[in-house]
Amino acid sequence: MSSPITLPTLKMLAEYLDTFVLVKLRDGTGIKGKLKTYDQHLNIVLSDAEEYRGGELTRRLGLTLVRGDSVVLISPAA
Amino acid sequence: MSSPITLPTLKMLAEYLDTFVLVKLRDGTGIKGKLKTYDQHLNIVLSDAEEYRGGELTRRLGLTLVRGDSVVLISPAA
Amino acid sequence: MSSPITLPTLKMLAEYLDTFVLVKLRDGTGIKGKLKTYDQHLNIVLSDAEEYRGGELTRRLGLTLVRGDSVVLISPAA
Amino acid sequence: MSSPITLPTLKMLAEYLDTFVLVKLRDGTGIKGKLKTYDQHLNIVLSDAEEYRGGELTRRLGLTLVRGDSVVLISPAA
Amino acid sequence: MSSPITLPTLKMLAEYLDTFVLVKLRDGTGIKGKLKTYDQHLNIVLSDAEEYRGGELTRRLGLTLVRGDSVVLISPAA
Amino acid sequence: MSSPITLPTLKMLAEYLDTFVLVKLRDGTGIKGKLKTYDQHLNIVLSDAEEYRGGELTRRLGLTLVRGDSVVLISPAA
Amino acid sequence: MSSPITLPTLKMLAEYLDTFVLVKLRDGTGIKGKLKTYDQHLNIVLSDAEEYRGGELTRRLGLTLVRGDSVVLISPAA
Repeated sequence: MSSPITLPTLKMLAEYLDTFVLVKLRDGTGIKGKLKTYDQHLNIVLSDAEEYRGGELTRRLGLTLVRGDSVVLISPAA
Repeated sequence: MSSPITLPTLKMLAEYLDTFVLVKLRDGTGIKGKLKTYDQHLNIVLSDAEEYRGGELTRRLGLTLVRGDSVVLISPAA
Repeated sequence: MSSPITLPTLKMLAEYLDTFVLVKLRDGTGIKGKLKTYDQHLNIVLSDAEEYRGGELTRRLGLTLVRGDSVVLISPAA
Repeated sequence: MSSPITLPTLKMLAEYLDTFVLVKLRDGTGIKGKLKTYDQHLNIVLSDAEEYRGGELTRRLGLTLVRGDSVVLISPAA
Repeated sequence: MSSPITLPTLKMLAEYLDTFVLVKLRDGTGIKGKLKTYDQHLNIVLSDAEEYRGGELTRRLGLTLVRGDSVVLISPAA
Repeated sequence: MSSPITLPTLKMLAEYLDTFVLVKLRDGTGIKGKLKTYDQHLNIVLSDAEEYRGGELTRRLGLTLVRGDSVVLISPAA
Repeated sequence: MSSPITLPTLKMLAEYLDTFVLVKLRDGTGIKGKLKTYDQHLNIVLSDAEEYRGGELTRRLGLTLVRGDSVVLISPAA
């Protein structure tokens, strides 16, 4: 999986490639999954993705594309 | 159906062409349908599309264009 | 009425010219009408347009311009 | 008053110059007035404008500029 | 005070320079004040500005810059 | 502190450099502070900033950067 | 860690590199962490990040990327 060269801030995401991250979305949902790739718009591809609300697993999503515009923050999965 | 060359993140969608995907929208609605094409704005065309709310089928939509700006995430249909 | 050449996704709309479509808006409103033209921003002109909320006809609008930014999805009218 | 040459969709508005239109805004408000001019952003100038909520006249506005970003749709005034 | 040459729609605002206008904002607030200048983004400078909610004067603001992105419409002050 | 040359509307802010201003945000919060600099996006740096809600001081913030996209209006602090 | 040269307003953030800041987000959440880098979109990388709501610590996030579009303001951590 390539590590796209983008903004300095986004380079930090290269450290997280192929590890599990938690992506918090604007609607309060959390998506956990293995970070496969991302781009400068913060569009994100996660494998083995799962949706969480209020700390509860609500759905298994599989290989998922999250639109950057919906992303609030990205941190390592606990 | 062509597979548009776009951002690395969006290439992942090429794997889903002609398969059923679930598109989650900003208003919480889910649209299930067969992925026919997409573009770099994440505008998406689905055939045999159906609208879901709270897990319930609420409407059959047929061949549908979903505006990228409304898309939160795209995953394989369960 | 011309069929504008735009994104591959939007070409699908050419099939719907002069047929009745349902346009779902961000505020949950549905607009039904005959598709007359559209552009790359998804601005849409409908003739004989009618506004629906919760499945109920709420207003007859006539020849109407819908701003692309308000559009969530476009499907054939049931 | 000039009829600006813009997107094909917006040309339809030229038919409405100097006639009364209803502009629906994002916040649910309707503005009725005589269409004087418009631009490609869908900024709109209305004379004799009036504000409506829930079908009730709530304010007389006079010569009014409506910002395109707030516009949902434009139709002939009933 | 200069009258900026911009979009045809915005030229209408030149008529209102140094007169009192009512600016309606996205959050429903109204700002009344004397129009001093504006730009193509609809950023607006008002002198002697006052904030209104539900028709009630809620705050005296003085010389105020209103961000265009918050503006819904501009009409003459009643 | 430099006075950035930008849009005519923003020049008005130069008068307010090193004086206390009130910045109203989209979420209804008010931020009071001494204006140190600003840019064409209306990003704003305030020193001695304080957060207010409903007229009550809710937090002391110190030297603060406010993102332009969140700004509704800027007026002199009462 | 480099100090990116950007807008005059953002230069102020260089003073905060490797110190703890409080980032207020659009949804009312506060993120506290050590500022590691940032860019012109106000994307921000924080180490040892923690999420706060209503003044309460709600989650430990670790090395976190916050999307600029979600940022309301940045101030020193109390």
